[in-house]
Amino acid sequence: MFKTIGILSPGDMGHAVGGRLAEKGLRVVAALGERSGRTQRLAAQVGIEDVGDYAGLVTASDAILCILVPAEAEATAQGVADALAATGISLLYADCNAIAPQTVRRIAGIIGGAGSRFVDASIIGGPPRPGYTPRFYASGPGAAEFAALNDCGLEVVQMGERVGDASAIKMCYGALTKGQSALYTELLVAAEALGVSDALTGEFRKSQADALKRMDGLPGMPPKSRRWVGEMEEIAATFAAVGLTPKIFEGAADLYRFVGDTALADRNPEDPGKPSLGEMVRQLADSLP
Amino acid sequence: MFKTIGILSPGDMGHAVGGRLAEKGLRVVAALGERSGRTQRLAAQVGIEDVGDYAGLVTASDAILCILVPAEAEATAQGVADALAATGISLLYADCNAIAPQTVRRIAGIIGGAGSRFVDASIIGGPPRPGYTPRFYASGPGAAEFAALNDCGLEVVQMGERVGDASAIKMCYGALTKGQSALYTELLVAAEALGVSDALTGEFRKSQADALKRMDGLPGMPPKSRRWVGEMEEIAATFAAVGLTPKIFEGAADLYRFVGDTALADRNPEDPGKPSLGEMVRQLADSLP
Repeated sequence: MFKTIGILSPGDMGHAVGGRLAEKGLRVVAALGERSGRTQRLAAQVGIEDVGDYAGLVTASDAILCILVPAEAEATAQGVADALAATGISLLYADCNAIAPQTVRRIAGIIGGAGSRFVDASIIGGPPRPGYTPRFYASGPGAAEFAALNDCGLEVVQMGERVGDASAIKMCYGALTKGQSALYTELLVAAEALGVSDALTGEFRKSQADALKRMDGLPGMPPKSRRWVGEMEEIAATFAAVGLTPKIFEGAADLYRFVGDTALADRNPEDPGKPSLGEMVRQLADSLP
Repeated sequence: MFKTIGILSPGDMGHAVGGRLAEKGLRVVAALGERSGRTQRLAAQVGIEDVGDYAGLVTASDAILCILVPAEAEATAQGVADALAATGISLLYADCNAIAPQTVRRIAGIIGGAGSRFVDASIIGGPPRPGYTPRFYASGPGAAEFAALNDCGLEVVQMGERVGDASAIKMCYGALTKGQSALYTELLVAAEALGVSDALTGEFRKSQADALKRMDGLPGMPPKSRRWVGEMEEIAATFAAVGLTPKIFEGAADLYRFVGDTALADRNPEDPGKPSLGEMVRQLADSLP
């Protein structure tokens, strides 16, 4: 069983996962030396202990859960691998990021090369909160060891021995949820810019009432849009690797980049003042080049 | 009031619209000289009369409803305009196609240049059938005249004087329905190719049951995929014209082009033997390059 878990890094998802593990009695640590004041505050609030840097992290941890924006996953794994090699420590490294199977296979090579065990993990759902736990999918040789977290307040679904499968399911799942959000946002902003918003909404009320209801959730998206850009690019790369067009998700990345460049993205998820759907769409239409 | 309506051309949607008008006592004509045997058969079944060519069509008709694949809309309007100019006839020309506002404005210029009246129309919904009527949105100077079809078994929603608005609402509406179908198809085929279909379906059952239900309609798509390529390209052009990324819908066009290149697209909508969702996804995954 694990006694100490390293969280890399305690952002919105990471701090909530670390908090859940701490609640269940595990020691939870993070290397917060160079992180933002917000990250340090979120971590302290849920009982995550600061061990300074990667050397401190690998020394303290039995397992490390890497939960980051996709673009940082590979460089971070390299940094941890360097610390593992320098200290001669072996632990379980779980890459929990929304990255393409081919990316996670490279990371498995980096961690394996430093003499540690690796598990391909992915998180389906939002951050843990009272009464709610997202599902961690886990594949690869370290999946069974990782599944011990089932006794520590997380839900782990084992998928077998192949590194890449846990990331693959995450890519396809994110393609649905975040792909839909991109699609809905684009067509609503287009309708606003074209001056047919009211007519379109009227038609949706008659023939697409369910879709209209799904669109109600869109105002929660802008604060996450910047980090979703990288995830869309990983989905595009995943689909291209099997011979499908990458363009739908390259376009979703473009859309989230556009949203991320507006003031709407400056809110944090916990901040007050979420706009209505209509306000969000008008602000985005006003931000078009 | 109209006595004779020309349908250009009586494919799946056009023959059903013509059939509805014929049921209501209008004379309905088409230029079937160079059309396929299937189109000629569909037309004859619902009482559409063959008047041979464009000269015959403009001579017989009080109004022409142009209902085609998007790529043919502009060249067809030019052909009709030439016949109008040659015969000196003036009538109401309704472009009912799924095309970008900028495309329909060019067509308005072509028809206006030949001395006829023009209405920008678009069809939201499937072909008319007993108990069901799709909605025709209509904008531009000819919209009020076109709305007389409200008394002839169609449902016309007038949108005002601006050519482009009826096409704009169609583009945004098709972006939802056909964009979703492209998105769902791509992620399901990717999951199949990546070997995680069962795990993904299991997760959808738990957390995306509604989306899974929406995916049940996908096996009806392949026979329409070839004609949807052009509609996706028109949506991409529409969105690019207001400053949004065209890539999501360029990708949707790629996806429908891929589906259209498989044997699944060889069925006609009225043919028996529709595959199950699982069969469709496996066949598409097997067709990847």
